Amino acid sequence: MPAYKAPLRDIRFLMNEVFDYSAHYKTLSNGENADPDTIDMILEGAADYCENVLSPLNQTGDDEGCHFENGEVRTPKGYKEAYDQFVQGGWQGLSYPEEFGGQGLPMSLNLIKSEMMGTANWAFTMYPGLSMGCMNTIMQFGTDDQKNTYMPHLVAGTWSGTMCLTEPQCGTDLGQVKTKAEPQADGTYKISGTKIFISAGEHDLTENIIHIVLARLPDAPAGTRGISLFIVPKFIPTQDGGVGERNTVACGSIEHKMGIKASATAVLNFDGATGYLIGEINKGLHAMFTFMNTARIGTAVQGIAHAELSYQGALPYAKERMSMRALSGKKDPDKVADAIIHHADVRRMLLTQKAIAEGGRAMIYHAAQLADKMADALIIGDQAKFEEYDDKLGFYTPILKGFLTELGLEAASHGMQVFGGHGYIKEWGMEQILRDARIATLYEGTTGVQALDLIGRKVLLSSKGKVVRDYTAEILKFCGRHARNKYLRRFAWDLTKLCAQWNTLTVRIMLAARKDRDIVSSASVDYLMFSGYVMLAYFWAQQAVIASEKLEAGDGKETPEFYKAKIKVADFYFERLLPRTQGHAEAMVNPSRTLMSLQSEHFSFDY
Amino acid sequence: MPAYKAPLRDIRFLMNEVFDYSAHYKTLSNGENADPDTIDMILEGAADYCENVLSPLNQTGDDEGCHFENGEVRTPKGYKEAYDQFVQGGWQGLSYPEEFGGQGLPMSLNLIKSEMMGTANWAFTMYPGLSMGCMNTIMQFGTDDQKNTYMPHLVAGTWSGTMCLTEPQCGTDLGQVKTKAEPQADGTYKISGTKIFISAGEHDLTENIIHIVLARLPDAPAGTRGISLFIVPKFIPTQDGGVGERNTVACGSIEHKMGIKASATAVLNFDGATGYLIGEINKGLHAMFTFMNTARIGTAVQGIAHAELSYQGALPYAKERMSMRALSGKKDPDKVADAIIHHADVRRMLLTQKAIAEGGRAMIYHAAQLADKMADALIIGDQAKFEEYDDKLGFYTPILKGFLTELGLEAASHGMQVFGGHGYIKEWGMEQILRDARIATLYEGTTGVQALDLIGRKVLLSSKGKVVRDYTAEILKFCGRHARNKYLRRFAWDLTKLCAQWNTLTVRIMLAARKDRDIVSSASVDYLMFSGYVMLAYFWAQQAVIASEKLEAGDGKETPEFYKAKIKVADFYFERLLPRTQGHAEAMVNPSRTLMSLQSEHFSFDY
Repeated sequence: MPAYKAPLRDIRFLMNEVFDYSAHYKTLSNGENADPDTIDMILEGAADYCENVLSPLNQTGDDEGCHFENGEVRTPKGYKEAYDQFVQGGWQGLSYPEEFGGQGLPMSLNLIKSEMMGTANWAFTMYPGLSMGCMNTIMQFGTDDQKNTYMPHLVAGTWSGTMCLTEPQCGTDLGQVKTKAEPQADGTYKISGTKIFISAGEHDLTENIIHIVLARLPDAPAGTRGISLFIVPKFIPTQDGGVGERNTVACGSIEHKMGIKASATAVLNFDGATGYLIGEINKGLHAMFTFMNTARIGTAVQGIAHAELSYQGALPYAKERMSMRALSGKKDPDKVADAIIHHADVRRMLLTQKAIAEGGRAMIYHAAQLADKMADALIIGDQAKFEEYDDKLGFYTPILKGFLTELGLEAASHGMQVFGGHGYIKEWGMEQILRDARIATLYEGTTGVQALDLIGRKVLLSSKGKVVRDYTAEILKFCGRHARNKYLRRFAWDLTKLCAQWNTLTVRIMLAARKDRDIVSSASVDYLMFSGYVMLAYFWAQQAVIASEKLEAGDGKETPEFYKAKIKVADFYFERLLPRTQGHAEAMVNPSRTLMSLQSEHFSFDY
Repeated sequence: MPAYKAPLRDIRFLMNEVFDYSAHYKTLSNGENADPDTIDMILEGAADYCENVLSPLNQTGDDEGCHFENGEVRTPKGYKEAYDQFVQGGWQGLSYPEEFGGQGLPMSLNLIKSEMMGTANWAFTMYPGLSMGCMNTIMQFGTDDQKNTYMPHLVAGTWSGTMCLTEPQCGTDLGQVKTKAEPQADGTYKISGTKIFISAGEHDLTENIIHIVLARLPDAPAGTRGISLFIVPKFIPTQDGGVGERNTVACGSIEHKMGIKASATAVLNFDGATGYLIGEINKGLHAMFTFMNTARIGTAVQGIAHAELSYQGALPYAKERMSMRALSGKKDPDKVADAIIHHADVRRMLLTQKAIAEGGRAMIYHAAQLADKMADALIIGDQAKFEEYDDKLGFYTPILKGFLTELGLEAASHGMQVFGGHGYIKEWGMEQILRDARIATLYEGTTGVQALDLIGRKVLLSSKGKVVRDYTAEILKFCGRHARNKYLRRFAWDLTKLCAQWNTLTVRIMLAARKDRDIVSSASVDYLMFSGYVMLAYFWAQQAVIASEKLEAGDGKETPEFYKAKIKVADFYFERLLPRTQGHAEAMVNPSRTLMSLQSEHFSFDY
C-alpha cells in the first residue's frame, strides 16, 4: 500500500496562486479566523495526522475489516486510537460554530482536511464524515434545545451521526420509504422499520450515535410528500448531557463489501425506538436535500482521493521497475532494462492519473469557495444569497460527483495496470484502491442519478439551458482575458469550440425531448461526461495560465519545474483526454428509440 | 452470484447461422468427427456440467479461496470433485489427438467449451486451462518419448501442466530470466531459480504437475536468445507411467489476489530440480511464442465470459427492482414504481454488456476457425499454411485479447452499477465478477503489451500496414455484398468511413514514427481500442445481416424476436459505442512529445 504523502505543494498552489483563498476568506463573515498562519497550521497538522496515523491503518483496516457480534461492531485494530487522536486534535469542529465548541472556520478548510484524510484512509474518514450530514441537519432545522443537546458532542466528535435513508426496497426512490413514526403523548415518536446501508451506523469509536431517520407518520401522504425527519439517538441523552438509556435501535448485521471494509455499513432495525421530530412534518425530504450538494461534493472528493493515492503508488514503481527498452533508445543504459516510466504508454497512464487528481482537485477547491459562501449566507441569515450559491453549486455538484468518481475509478485502475501482474496482488495495495474507489459511483446517488439531476433538473427543467450558457460565457470570458497568453492560445480554440458544442448539444436535447421524453435519460450520462471533460479542461487551462504567468514573472525561481509540469499536464489533458468529448457528443444526440424499443423480455433468449 | 446459464441459442446462432461451422469443419482433416450430433452432445454436455457443477462453486470458491500449508495447496471445497467429473467426462482431451486418448476434435470446440466453463467459473477453469499450453508445447516440440510419457496423462487430465515464465524481476521482459539449467552427465539438467505468478503451479486436483520452465544454460547468450525450455515434473514419471520420486521443485507460497481466488497462483522454487530439455537449446522463447496466439485468445475469452456473466446477473435484477417512473410515463402502473429496466440509462448499461458479450463472442468464434485451420496445418504438416494462419491470427490476437478484456472490465462494472449500492455487496456476487475480470488486462501480456504488439509488430514492422489494408478491404467487400440489405445500409456508411480512417491513421503513425519513434507506444492503446471498435462493428454488422436475412426468409418464425434483437443491438452498438472511435483517433495522432517531455523527477513535487 502506498504510504500517503499530503500533496501540500499542489494544495498551496491552488489555495494561494490559482484561487486566492486569502482574498476569498476576507469576503466571509467568519473569514478573519482563517489567516495564513492558521491555514498553514491546519494544513501541516492535517498532513501529519494523515501521513502518520491514518495512512498506516489503511491496508490493515482492509485486511481485518469490521467485526459484528451480538449487535456490536468492532472496528479494526488502531481505529479507536486514531479516532481518539482525531477528537483530541479538534478536527471534527474545524468548520462548526464556536458556540458549540468548534473553531468556526470556513467550510472549505474542512473539505481540504477531508480530502487529505480520505486519501490517506477513506474507510476511516467515513466515520466522522457521516456526522457532518447529521450536524448540518440539526444546525439548520433543529430547535435550540436539540442543538444544545447534540451539537457540542457531535462537534467534539465524542458522538457521531448518521443519515438513515435507504431501506431494502428503496434507495434512490425515497418515496417508497416505509419506516413508521407513531406520535406519542409526550411529543416524541416511536420509530419502527429497517434501514440498510447505514455507514457508521454502528461502531465502537464514540459514546453515542445520533441517527437522522426518514420515516412516515401514520396519516402522511404517500410518496415523497409524506416523509418526516427524526433524531433517533442510540442512547437517549440525559439532562446533564451524558448518555442515558439504550434506545431500541439495533444493528442487525453489517455488510460484506468489495472495499472500504474498515467502514461499518449497518443494517439498523428500529423497533419502536424513541425519535424526536426535527423540522416540519412531511417536509423531511426537502430538509434532507438542503445539504445534498455539500454531501455530494464530499463524495466527489473520493474521485480525486483515489486518483491521488493510486498515482502515489504507481509513480515510484514506474521509476523502479525495469522492463524492456524505450522505443526511442536506451534511457538507463547501465541497467539491464529501462525503467518503465520511459515507456510512452506507461506515461499515458501516469499522466492520466495526474490530470485527474490535480485537475479534479482544482474543481473541488473552486466549488469549496462556493460552499463557503453558501454557509456564510446561512450564518448571516441571507436566504436569497444562500439560494443563489446553492443553485450555482447545484450545477457543479452532479458534475463533480458523477464525473470525478467515474474518473477516479479509471485512475485507480491505471494504477494497478502500471504494476502489471503485481497490481493484482493484495500486498502492493493497488487493488484495494480500486475496490475502495468502486463504491463512489454508487452511493450518494449513482452516476445515472447525478446525470439525470444535471441534465433533467439543473439544465433543462430549472434553467432551460441558462446554467450552461452562463457557465460557458464565463469560460469564454476567461479565454478572452488570456488571449495573449502563449500557452492558452492553443487551448483557447479548443475551449471555445467545446463551449459552443456544449450549448448546441443542450439545445438539441431540449428540443428533441419535446417529442422524445426518454432522450433526457438516454443522453444523460454522455451529457454528464461531456460536461465534466469540458469543465476539467477549463480548470486545467486556469492552472496553466497561472503557471505560465508565474514563470514569466520569475516567481517560481526555486521551483520553475513545478509550473512547467502544470503546463505539460494541461497539454496532455487537452491532447489526450479531452478528445473523448466527441464520442460522448456523437452518442448522446441519437434518439432514445435505439435504447427503448427492445422489449424487456427480448433482452435474452437463453435465460 | 448469478447462476450461469449457457447461452446456447446465441452459440448456435454463431456456429450454424453466422459462421457455418458445419461447412468449416468439412475443410479440416479432423473435421469429420465434428458432425452435428457430436457438436450438439458437446454443447449440451458442457452446458450441463457448467451450469450444475461449476457455476455453484464460483462464489463459494471466492469466499474460501485456496489454502497454503507446508508447501501444499488445498483448493476450495468441491473443486476436487468437480475436477474429477471433468476428467471423467473426458473434457480435457476434446481437441487433443486420439493417439493420446483425446477425441481429436477441432480446436474451436475446445475454445467454445472453455468459454462456457470460464463463464461459469473462471478460477476453476484456469487449472485445466494451463495444461493446454503445456500440452501444445510437448506435442509440438517434445520427442516421441516425451510425448508418450506426458501426453496421455495430460490429455486425460489426471496430470496437469503449467507455464513457468515470470520471475520476480521480470514478466514481459523475459530476456531478464535468471533461472539456471546445469547440464548433467545423464543428459538431464538441474534447474534452479524462482518463478512467480504460476497459475495452477501447485494444487490438489491431479496426481502430478508438469512444469514447462524457461531457464538459461551456463554458457547461454544474454537476453532472449539464451533461453531454453525444460520439462520439470513435480514427480518424476516412472517407466511404467506412474508417478515416482518427488522432484525438488517446491511451492513457496501462493499469492493473495484481488480475485480469481479459487485459482492458486504459486511461487515455485526450483532447487536443482531435474529437468528435461524440450526443443532446441536457446530457442525456448521462440517455442514459447508458437502458441502465444492460441493462449492469448484463450484469455480474450475472459472478456466475454465476464461480460456475459455480469449481464446474466444484471438483467433479472433490472427487471425486478422497482424505482422511480420512466420519463415517458408509467410502465408498471400497478406497481409502486417502474422496474428499472424501463429507464433508458439502465438499458444503456445492459445493452452495452450485451453488445460486448455477444459481439465479442462473434469475434472469438471467428478466430476459433482460424485456430482450427492453424492446428490442422500442424496435423497435416503444412508449415506454410500454419504460418499463413498464424499470421492472420496474429493480427486478431492482440485486438481480441487487449480490446475484449478491457471491454469485459467495463461490462462487469456496468453489471455492478445496475445494482446500485447492492452491487457493492458481496452476497450478490456482482463485485466478484469485476474482481475476477480485473486480472484479464494484466496477464498474458498487459493491454499495453498487446497494443504494442499490434501496432508495432503486426501492423508496422511485419506488414507496413498491409494487414489493415487487407482487413478493411474484406470489410468493404462485405459492405458491397450487402449494399441492398436495408439494415446494413445505415451501417455500411459508418463502416466505410471507419475503414478509411483506420488506414489513414495507420499511415499517419507510420510516417510520424520515422522521426518520432515513441509515437508507436504513445499511440498504441488508442490504436488498439480504435481497431477493436471497428472490428466489433464489423461483427455486429455480420450478425445483423444474417438476422435480417433470416427474418426476410421467414426462417425465424418461431423466434423472430431473437433476430430482431440482434438487429436492435447492432443499432445500439453503432449509435452508442462506435462513436468512441473518434476520441481515440483524435488522441493517437498527437506527437509523443506531450507524453515524453516531462522528466521523471518532475512527475511530482510532493513525494
